[in-house]
Amino acid sequence: MPPAGRDFFDVRMRGFRDRAEVKDVFRLIDERVQALEAENVSLAAAGGRVLATDVRSEVAVPGFDRSAMDGYALVAEETFGSGPYNPVELRIIGSAMPGRPFPGTVASGQAVRIMTGAPVPVGADAVLPVEAAEESAEILRIGEAVAPGRHISRRGEDVQAGQVVFGQGRALRPQDLGVLASIGVATVAVIRQPRVDIVISGDELLPVGAKPEGWRIVDSNSVMLAALVRRDGGETNVLPLLPDRREVLREAMRQCTADVLLLSGGSSVGQEDHAPTLLAELGELCVHGVALRPASPAGLGFIGTQLVFLLPGNPVSCLCAYDLFAGRAIRRLGGRNPELPYRTEVMPLTAKIASAVGRLDYARVRVQNGHAEPLAISGASILTTTTEADGFVLVPADSEGYPAGATVTVYRYDR
Amino acid sequence: MPPAGRDFFDVRMRGFRDRAEVKDVFRLIDERVQALEAENVSLAAAGGRVLATDVRSEVAVPGFDRSAMDGYALVAEETFGSGPYNPVELRIIGSAMPGRPFPGTVASGQAVRIMTGAPVPVGADAVLPVEAAEESAEILRIGEAVAPGRHISRRGEDVQAGQVVFGQGRALRPQDLGVLASIGVATVAVIRQPRVDIVISGDELLPVGAKPEGWRIVDSNSVMLAALVRRDGGETNVLPLLPDRREVLREAMRQCTADVLLLSGGSSVGQEDHAPTLLAELGELCVHGVALRPASPAGLGFIGTQLVFLLPGNPVSCLCAYDLFAGRAIRRLGGRNPELPYRTEVMPLTAKIASAVGRLDYARVRVQNGHAEPLAISGASILTTTTEADGFVLVPADSEGYPAGATVTVYRYDR
Repeated sequence: MPPAGRDFFDVRMRGFRDRAEVKDVFRLIDERVQALEAENVSLAAAGGRVLATDVRSEVAVPGFDRSAMDGYALVAEETFGSGPYNPVELRIIGSAMPGRPFPGTVASGQAVRIMTGAPVPVGADAVLPVEAAEESAEILRIGEAVAPGRHISRRGEDVQAGQVVFGQGRALRPQDLGVLASIGVATVAVIRQPRVDIVISGDELLPVGAKPEGWRIVDSNSVMLAALVRRDGGETNVLPLLPDRREVLREAMRQCTADVLLLSGGSSVGQEDHAPTLLAELGELCVHGVALRPASPAGLGFIGTQLVFLLPGNPVSCLCAYDLFAGRAIRRLGGRNPELPYRTEVMPLTAKIASAVGRLDYARVRVQNGHAEPLAISGASILTTTTEADGFVLVPADSEGYPAGATVTVYRYDR
Repeated sequence: MPPAGRDFFDVRMRGFRDRAEVKDVFRLIDERVQALEAENVSLAAAGGRVLATDVRSEVAVPGFDRSAMDGYALVAEETFGSGPYNPVELRIIGSAMPGRPFPGTVASGQAVRIMTGAPVPVGADAVLPVEAAEESAEILRIGEAVAPGRHISRRGEDVQAGQVVFGQGRALRPQDLGVLASIGVATVAVIRQPRVDIVISGDELLPVGAKPEGWRIVDSNSVMLAALVRRDGGETNVLPLLPDRREVLREAMRQCTADVLLLSGGSSVGQEDHAPTLLAELGELCVHGVALRPASPAGLGFIGTQLVFLLPGNPVSCLCAYDLFAGRAIRRLGGRNPELPYRTEVMPLTAKIASAVGRLDYARVRVQNGHAEPLAISGASILTTTTEADGFVLVPADSEGYPAGATVTVYRYDR
């Protein structure tokens, strides 16, 4: 049904008279979005996850004194004064290996062959390196003296019993998993991953994998958003495309049980943009319209404790609104650093970036020879401006932009 | 069976008389390891994967001229001379929306309401923004003139038919998936992910999840290596722990069909270090012993086309040898950037790092207030030196180290 008369523009197309400032949206998110509860996962599945509590070791690592060298375990005092020309001789009474400790005691006049990592036998208090001795027929000839404790790694040298090895909030690195394994941890309490539903609406859209045909274009936001959410530690569920029908969208919003609902399309102020009014009807519309180019139609709110983000259908706007707002919330829910997950570089601009005061601009740039070349601020529908770019510059709301040669911070798209 | 007499040290413990230089190991890997073959994956699974071929678009995006604004599609010439005090009037004959194009033609004296993204109707050649007009009773009063082509996004503005959108070797970013969807791609040819088997041996080891007990320590390398391999784009298969028995290890090596076999433990020059001689027996032992602290017992070779890495059992050495050698090969197999996948920062040292000429040193450092504080070079068995550190510094083989205050490159463990 085509709209009639002034309603086409006047009813919903009233425009954004009161656009929220980006910093206020950040504050809203930071105040209202906290990390989710803990869940236990096996160590093998814990890489990259965020600790929900401190981890304290119940044990010492190693749990015993061990040899730091291949050599001979002996009583240090017996080597004093020994040298190449007057070697002390000891009787070799056995061997100690990491997987086969020496079961007896080392007494005066005795030594035990020992491999790196093997427990130091009872009675011995030093290890003489293999290079500093000669052996034949079970007799060890000592080429140099060693001090007590030499070449012995002490019990607890790596981790002490009772020690906090990692604090709450640590994003687990590969070697962290190794340390956790070494202290006998089997499962670890980590922040649950946010579950994120992705709902795309638009009568003009064909599903991913279809060929564009005539006036119908292919949904590009669902695959992009799913990859962004996974990058930020969320679990995604992409729902089938929805038509621009209020009842259908309302039902999808009511049925969503995820932690976060991302709605793309239908979020602006046009005739068929039902999402904002539906969010106000079903829950709370906190923000609709942001002083941000190219993502001004973005919005957010809550249905109960569920976060709902209204993301513009134009793919560049969708990417920008996701990274700044939805991604921030998802990163917070997962206990991660909420700031933009791109590495930054500081470099000069090759040309000016113009920007209106009162609005934050997301300017795509190409990086060449250590300089940033501005590509686009507008062109919200041209996704290739973000794939030809190497990154972006954020021009703050209180800035009129940057002249050529100004030093800017570039957020790099490549990780 | 404990070893007898000199054999304990002499047979395999001959030491590394000819340690390979790290740069020569890099060259060997770079010469002999190339990217794997292509496989087709769905777009939804293609995030982070590496393109095996160029991708050329068969279609233009958009495939039609579309409106860049909410407004009115009309014949530009008819607005010339129009202004607030002498408005031209046009008859509104319908509406165009992205999902519901206007089916007719715009003739002289006519206009069509149009939403952003909607196809421009036949006959119209410009869009007048909604702010520049008034309408009532299907009559449009035009407040300002527009030039032909104004506010129209042209067919092919985003992607032109025949254009190469991404080149071979591109690691696909979230927005790249969006562009690929928009040109109608359903599956994409990417480099196959390397399959990596992880085999850990050691009589002293307990499996991950067990509590350390007496002289038995828990394997910490398997979970660490699995997380490192996944970070580098590989698929992992962690096999059950093996005892230090030559026949058992030989059988495991023979049965492995993965692209890469990582062997940790049994790789040094000790009595029970069977891996190097087995690799020489079953295939080709290219390197055994590297001028690298703390990973000198590392080695590598081939069994047929399969890459085999001998990684030291000490966890710090294992991490270092993985990152420098095995990881490099796995990243190459997957078509990725082979260099270390850590972000780098340049900063001054708070204290000196001493290093022997002829050997590359892997020095763990803590970063505070923009300065790097050296923590450890030795301590190969103390994995917490890599978890308390924020990153590491590589001291080249031709350097005696760095004095306090020297500027160094820090590889940051956090991503």
